[in-house]
Amino acid sequence: MLKINCDMGESFGAWTMGDDSHVMPHIDMANIACGFHASDPLTMAKTVELALASGVAIGAHPSYPDLMGFGRREMSIAPAELKQLVIYQIGALNGICRALGAEVSYVKPHGALYNKMVVDEAIFRAVLEAVSQYDAGLSLVVMAVPESENLTRLAREYGVNLLFEVFTDRAYDENGRLASRSIPGAVFHTDIEIERQARAIIERSAVITLEGAEIPVSADTICVHGDGPRAVQTAQLLRSLIG
Amino acid sequence: MLKINCDMGESFGAWTMGDDSHVMPHIDMANIACGFHASDPLTMAKTVELALASGVAIGAHPSYPDLMGFGRREMSIAPAELKQLVIYQIGALNGICRALGAEVSYVKPHGALYNKMVVDEAIFRAVLEAVSQYDAGLSLVVMAVPESENLTRLAREYGVNLLFEVFTDRAYDENGRLASRSIPGAVFHTDIEIERQARAIIERSAVITLEGAEIPVSADTICVHGDGPRAVQTAQLLRSLIG
Amino acid sequence: MLKINCDMGESFGAWTMGDDSHVMPHIDMANIACGFHASDPLTMAKTVELALASGVAIGAHPSYPDLMGFGRREMSIAPAELKQLVIYQIGALNGICRALGAEVSYVKPHGALYNKMVVDEAIFRAVLEAVSQYDAGLSLVVMAVPESENLTRLAREYGVNLLFEVFTDRAYDENGRLASRSIPGAVFHTDIEIERQARAIIERSAVITLEGAEIPVSADTICVHGDGPRAVQTAQLLRSLIG
Amino acid sequence: MLKINCDMGESFGAWTMGDDSHVMPHIDMANIACGFHASDPLTMAKTVELALASGVAIGAHPSYPDLMGFGRREMSIAPAELKQLVIYQIGALNGICRALGAEVSYVKPHGALYNKMVVDEAIFRAVLEAVSQYDAGLSLVVMAVPESENLTRLAREYGVNLLFEVFTDRAYDENGRLASRSIPGAVFHTDIEIERQARAIIERSAVITLEGAEIPVSADTICVHGDGPRAVQTAQLLRSLIG
Repeated sequence: MLKINCDMGESFGAWTMGDDSHVMPHIDMANIACGFHASDPLTMAKTVELALASGVAIGAHPSYPDLMGFGRREMSIAPAELKQLVIYQIGALNGICRALGAEVSYVKPHGALYNKMVVDEAIFRAVLEAVSQYDAGLSLVVMAVPESENLTRLAREYGVNLLFEVFTDRAYDENGRLASRSIPGAVFHTDIEIERQARAIIERSAVITLEGAEIPVSADTICVHGDGPRAVQTAQLLRSLIG
Repeated sequence: MLKINCDMGESFGAWTMGDDSHVMPHIDMANIACGFHASDPLTMAKTVELALASGVAIGAHPSYPDLMGFGRREMSIAPAELKQLVIYQIGALNGICRALGAEVSYVKPHGALYNKMVVDEAIFRAVLEAVSQYDAGLSLVVMAVPESENLTRLAREYGVNLLFEVFTDRAYDENGRLASRSIPGAVFHTDIEIERQARAIIERSAVITLEGAEIPVSADTICVHGDGPRAVQTAQLLRSLIG
Repeated sequence: MLKINCDMGESFGAWTMGDDSHVMPHIDMANIACGFHASDPLTMAKTVELALASGVAIGAHPSYPDLMGFGRREMSIAPAELKQLVIYQIGALNGICRALGAEVSYVKPHGALYNKMVVDEAIFRAVLEAVSQYDAGLSLVVMAVPESENLTRLAREYGVNLLFEVFTDRAYDENGRLASRSIPGAVFHTDIEIERQARAIIERSAVITLEGAEIPVSADTICVHGDGPRAVQTAQLLRSLIG
Repeated sequence: MLKINCDMGESFGAWTMGDDSHVMPHIDMANIACGFHASDPLTMAKTVELALASGVAIGAHPSYPDLMGFGRREMSIAPAELKQLVIYQIGALNGICRALGAEVSYVKPHGALYNKMVVDEAIFRAVLEAVSQYDAGLSLVVMAVPESENLTRLAREYGVNLLFEVFTDRAYDENGRLASRSIPGAVFHTDIEIERQARAIIERSAVITLEGAEIPVSADTICVHGDGPRAVQTAQLLRSLIG
């Protein structure tokens, strides 16, 4: 069964982002920021408590170290260093979990790192090594892409299980890759579009392309964007469709 | 038997501090910075590897979040937030340890936080809660002070074991408290003074005061300041005296 | 005539705070964050542009270096260093102003630094030196306090003009000092209370105390808290009362 | 006459880098870090004072915002934001200069930004706009590259004067471009090699290539790397050769 995941804990100090307490009851997996692109230790603890209260699985959501850019800017960090940045973040969140009687069960990299790892093997290996050396029992969430067999093969080398992720508020290109945000129609802004994409994914294991075609996709989890105005209602919609 | 501890991993990015690789073989406990006053994930990993190679116990060395001030500036952080800052840092270092087959076995707060916790009960309780909730099996290093019974009683509430720490490069006042750095003669700059204080501690369980008297002290561990020019030779001296 | 000032530019990267574009047209002075407690260079530039469009005076709003704590946490920074931190921030904002054809005309310290400087002479002198050495033509905004003569005398030593500030959403104690937020009734949450305090200040040069008495106050500027839900309407109210 | 420049003020808080006080008397231009890859306001002020004492020209040395990576990691920052980051840093340093009776007279970007701007026109334009809008009277230091005419043409659009820079501790390729550090022989480690390159530059307006040939170069300034062990003696050597 498809799991609903959402980025959580992306407030920082005095700044608020997202509507975590209202989204949490409708999702299965909470990707909790670890302080490098968002969050701070107190925010992380509060978010872990929310996840515990709703019985939601907790994932580490590590990032490049870039608060000002919210982890959305590519940074050329050497793989050996990147590996330690990822381990540090997983460990930090897991420490906060441990103090609250919870634990991290998967990892979903954030932003520019999330995008980079599916197109740069050295970076993907660095993330896999981080997960594998920290705890090979953690799953790693990656974008569902056409070359998923290659990713799966690499992950197997490190003994890491992958969870492929799809998006209901985005169109795909004819190869099954996310259509670039710069293309008109690539980002869905209406409930109708989002529901149509959600139904394709949930009911037919397919995604709708820019041209309106459907192509098959193998997905384990659907992302709800937690920082948008529509987060709660999208989460509710997905919950009602998935059951 | 007295343990020799030293602050380690206090380099940061391109900046180097201390002579970790030469000090490590002579000490028993490495207090490793966790990224809030010094260190970065790659530096932490390298320092953990050094500790492993020398069979040295690894401690988390958490701090106020203040790289520019090296954690030496008092910050008025609320206890509930401070607790999570400490847990975050222990978890982060323990994550890096775990990936390398090591683990954190104690906690020694750094700088202004280290000084604050023995004079502010709410802060001390926040640190104790952090340690206790993360893993009550971890020891907590605190300054040997005249009112140690009070600290011990509080620590017992949280089930945390304390390790009292003394300094060989500092004079004490007549009450057994570290003499303020602003008093002439409070900081020892010669090998002779340091050795005299070291011998008092190791051979007679006493510290030498500013006036030259000896007063009894109950200590578990001696600190070597890792950032000074004399770190290696002080560590060697203590090693030879303690055996 | 009383000037209306408001903290502005307190968003940071992906996080938004305040409703700057709607508040700006109603105020006289924009205290723009300089990157140490909030803001980033791009946000600062956008805020300067907003101020220019409304013909609002631009002030530097320097802080302790503490993004995570939003500059609200006291930090024990040595005066000589604090002076340079303040100069750095004034210079940075003035640089952005200069590139846009604007300029900084006053300084209002933020948060914990704002509170500290009226009770700690060494800190107040550090801020005065910063302003004076950067440009003695800049005014310095300080809290209206009972001991204002002392502040004025010190400022005169440095050739700096002070602007005394009052608050319409806060009660004062019988000495003319802001009542602590921890006292019930110290913070006003209703329009009626705020308008009553505003009228006392604007129409009678007085502030209302917790006990409901009025005591005289000499103020140059009134603060609107820009991060609250009531910022725009409070600014409009003050505008209509002051004219 | 060729000017000798050196990166200065690259200490940060408790960490020291370089030997600024000994290098300063031998150079003409001090590129002072602005807090984004290194330095802090107090360090900047001390470095400005050193420059003033030696009559050395002060340049802003802005960087990507990356203390942990020392500004050496490429970051994909949008040009409009990058422009403000550069203006912020120039303004901050100029503020500190102003308080000390000095002023910034040129700009030399640091690290990854320095390398990027000569190969990415949008980034180069962003830097040119920053300089031009802040003060078109400031010169901009760029790497001497084969396509310097193109850079000169762009700079002229913005009314900015360029200073081309060469390195005495590096070999060039046959096109007059710095040979990559990864090629054996690309970085000079001996005094003999450095002096040979320095003499080619100073006496014959040429650089020596990896193959040992000389090709003409038009340079305005020579860089001394301030963080190496050889900084003082290289500066002295250049001073003696240039006169």
